[in-house]
Amino acid sequence: MDLIRAAAENAVEIFDSTLRDGAQGEGISFSPEDKLAVVKALDYAGIDYIEAGNPGSNPKDMEFFKRVRENPPRRARLVAFGSTRRKGIRAEEDENCLSLLKAGTEAVAVFGKAWDMHVTEIIRTGLEENLNMIRDTVSFFKSNGREVIFDAEHFFDGFKNSPQYAIEALRAAHEAGADRIVLCETNGGCLPDEVGRITAEAVKSLPGAVIGIHCHDDSGCAAANSLAAVSAGARHVQGTYLGYGERCGNANLSTIIPNLQIKMGFACVPEQCLERFTRTARWVSEIANQSLYRGMPYVGGAAFSHKAGMHIDAVAKEPGSFEHISPETVGNERRFLMSEVAGRGTVLKKISRIAPELTKASPETAEICSLVKQLEFEGYSFEAAEASFELLVKRVLGRKKTFFTLNYFKTVVDEPNNDRFSSSAIIKITVGDKTEITAAEGDGPVHALDNALRRALEGFYPLIGGVHLTDYKVRVLEPQKATGAKVRVLIESSDETGSWSTVGVSTDVIDASWKALVESVEYRLMKEEEINKKIII
Amino acid sequence: MDLIRAAAENAVEIFDSTLRDGAQGEGISFSPEDKLAVVKALDYAGIDYIEAGNPGSNPKDMEFFKRVRENPPRRARLVAFGSTRRKGIRAEEDENCLSLLKAGTEAVAVFGKAWDMHVTEIIRTGLEENLNMIRDTVSFFKSNGREVIFDAEHFFDGFKNSPQYAIEALRAAHEAGADRIVLCETNGGCLPDEVGRITAEAVKSLPGAVIGIHCHDDSGCAAANSLAAVSAGARHVQGTYLGYGERCGNANLSTIIPNLQIKMGFACVPEQCLERFTRTARWVSEIANQSLYRGMPYVGGAAFSHKAGMHIDAVAKEPGSFEHISPETVGNERRFLMSEVAGRGTVLKKISRIAPELTKASPETAEICSLVKQLEFEGYSFEAAEASFELLVKRVLGRKKTFFTLNYFKTVVDEPNNDRFSSSAIIKITVGDKTEITAAEGDGPVHALDNALRRALEGFYPLIGGVHLTDYKVRVLEPQKATGAKVRVLIESSDETGSWSTVGVSTDVIDASWKALVESVEYRLMKEEEINKKIII
Repeated sequence: MDLIRAAAENAVEIFDSTLRDGAQGEGISFSPEDKLAVVKALDYAGIDYIEAGNPGSNPKDMEFFKRVRENPPRRARLVAFGSTRRKGIRAEEDENCLSLLKAGTEAVAVFGKAWDMHVTEIIRTGLEENLNMIRDTVSFFKSNGREVIFDAEHFFDGFKNSPQYAIEALRAAHEAGADRIVLCETNGGCLPDEVGRITAEAVKSLPGAVIGIHCHDDSGCAAANSLAAVSAGARHVQGTYLGYGERCGNANLSTIIPNLQIKMGFACVPEQCLERFTRTARWVSEIANQSLYRGMPYVGGAAFSHKAGMHIDAVAKEPGSFEHISPETVGNERRFLMSEVAGRGTVLKKISRIAPELTKASPETAEICSLVKQLEFEGYSFEAAEASFELLVKRVLGRKKTFFTLNYFKTVVDEPNNDRFSSSAIIKITVGDKTEITAAEGDGPVHALDNALRRALEGFYPLIGGVHLTDYKVRVLEPQKATGAKVRVLIESSDETGSWSTVGVSTDVIDASWKALVESVEYRLMKEEEINKKIII
Repeated sequence: MDLIRAAAENAVEIFDSTLRDGAQGEGISFSPEDKLAVVKALDYAGIDYIEAGNPGSNPKDMEFFKRVRENPPRRARLVAFGSTRRKGIRAEEDENCLSLLKAGTEAVAVFGKAWDMHVTEIIRTGLEENLNMIRDTVSFFKSNGREVIFDAEHFFDGFKNSPQYAIEALRAAHEAGADRIVLCETNGGCLPDEVGRITAEAVKSLPGAVIGIHCHDDSGCAAANSLAAVSAGARHVQGTYLGYGERCGNANLSTIIPNLQIKMGFACVPEQCLERFTRTARWVSEIANQSLYRGMPYVGGAAFSHKAGMHIDAVAKEPGSFEHISPETVGNERRFLMSEVAGRGTVLKKISRIAPELTKASPETAEICSLVKQLEFEGYSFEAAEASFELLVKRVLGRKKTFFTLNYFKTVVDEPNNDRFSSSAIIKITVGDKTEITAAEGDGPVHALDNALRRALEGFYPLIGGVHLTDYKVRVLEPQKATGAKVRVLIESSDETGSWSTVGVSTDVIDASWKALVESVEYRLMKEEEINKKIII
């Protein structure tokens, strides 16, 4: 990525701000280690610029910039972010400008005001002084050898209020030597037609400038707005990889890049990077400790999931019948969900992945189908519990080993309770000819039981020590029966080999959780055995 | 909403398919009771059409259509969904068509193929027979007195492949008398420019027809695509209220309607309904047992949350500086994430209903506000638990009597267990100077505890014998912490005087349930006392 690339007719530069604007999202915060990991992930995905912090407002960010120099990204360019100099002083005297320089990045992003109302009402200075603040700050960084990306904050709202002033602000930055002029749709309220029209005005007003776009999603149109700007001539797109950001979030780059590259023919990331997109999405969401929204375009877990029976039949005949692109293009995969509406065809397709030798006519197939139907009638749902489904199939085929048997467990909850934990569990299990009895405490009886089961198993199966529960969901199936109703518990587990989901149903939440916990452990042990068998062969 | 409304220049009809296309989303399923509740919620939000099921493919849906007739929506029109007749038979002989008629709705939505590839490769019939299937089916329902909404499946992909045939399919439906011709962007892969351009072609080709749009979000542009279609002349918009749907979901109506109504000047829902949007969003997501995505435009919990210090300062000076609309317009509220200066106005409104004598300046008001904030921080939510909120206010005002105190309880779960119930509970309580110890069994520890508490109280307060729990919901608040996560329990109770809801939060599901159970009983006893006092006076 260089200045020549941006000038090419069909290239669009990508600028990610997950670590700066993304960190303004509710519930998002990154440690310096997290930030290093996100830089690595974004570099892997082929992002051009990584805006990684605001060293002036956040001292931790300065530490990060020091550390990242020891292990810089291979391809991406790092960017530090800050504001124009304060009113009434020189850039050389402004602490924030000096911090920004000290971050030692090749490029800096500097934001300045482009909405006259903000100049007079928020920072409360004169319109001419604001233009001077922009000019001085850009010149200061250019004379210090930095690539300068100028973010024109509130450009669109500013343009709607006073087109002349908003364009003046851009021109001030351009004439002072800014390398990129970025139009920010800061409040996120614009719609695509507006963004396209106003971007075209900016492009026309600044011949020779590389124009960028920075959108927020308050109208649910951040992706479309970014595309509209590119159609109008912008060649630099800012956003955050998974759309993290303040309020409704920033423009989602994992959506925008495939749209630009696959559908609009622009070159954004190197060709081999596109198929890394789903993996990168999981990686970034893991680091941010957020669950990845399953409906997220291109990279979500459900982005290519089919549930309606008719759709499943059609996709089997011709994938393009209900898929806009091939899931492999972005490293995702097609999934067929099971539901009462889905029918036998779907179950068959899922069986054949686990046991390819079974046909529609095999007696085992009929047995599995009727078992699934019976369990779904009882409240099970295998749609989100593929590990439980695989165990079911292997049980019918007689390929499921018994790893342990339960002798008994007992959970007790006492109130009031002065101890840290209100609950305890005792469990006794048998593995081969040995028995093990253990006890554990927890926040609530399920937590206590989970802890006790792990402790009991770890002596026999040390790998269970590396398994963590990463998600726990309870669904009351017949809420009208109140506390006597059935509940379905879904558990997601993971370790360094991946993640898997299991399900349990009962009128008793503890019993339902127990079933899902047992299957989680059994699934992992079964997978380990399968790997070992392959190695022996 | 009537045919005249759709014809008006600035009106756009809204058609919700949460209960049909939405139910194709991963993890979404609705019981007949859930469906009735969703109909109520959407009717409250001012939606014109509610597509509520596919009686041909799902027998449970037929039961729902029977039940909804006893309690129909006030304003919305119910729609049953199905396909055109099968190839080679008459509509009168087609079971699905007959089921659709039997659903007894005023309007039916019928989908037919508009993509020649789908006709020849998926349903494998002739192009002319497909047009006959459309004509026959529309005529059949028109001659049976139904309003007919024709969904042209895959219209956009069809148009890109063969514009003539795609338009022919629309014309077949139009000439057979369909009241609405809906262009479906079934695969969700189109971008706004395309959708606008192709919609304009359809509008031009069918003068006098009311054209609709139905989008999916696979390119992250479903909202923008719907707006582009309206700009091109569509006057009927289909989607799902929260964007639920197969793969990446359907177009999100809670985003599209405010965009159309506030920003583009179209009339979609009655003016007073817009401020019900946030409440409706919470309601629908509760019924679907999905957490409401906090970054969702307009209605999400973070849609108007400000975190950056500079932004909070600016918003305090001038809300428009970082908000595209006023949050109250859609019933949402501004939140400041760093400083604790949130939503006092809302709480005040709720307090004044319970204690009209309190003003903004009363010290009790400040105490209630800070208590609510603290509890919400801990995971409480009073939105759906107004009885708990009333108890909180009365506690602060010193108007809450103690009806009983807990000495202790103990719940035990044993597995395996040969008895009918796996769980038992012991409880000891004190009322005045008397104590009572009882035990009870149940399906699970919460059920056992509920039974034991009722038995213990009945001797002192016989009316408790008439109270039943009618709803019990569990929500895991931090699923990533798995079985150690916090849970929120919501309980709905009722007796012959009415129904009320209470809430409890804890890391222990039993403790959370206990808190909600206690408040349920206390609320009922408090109400009884208030009635008796009034009678004495």
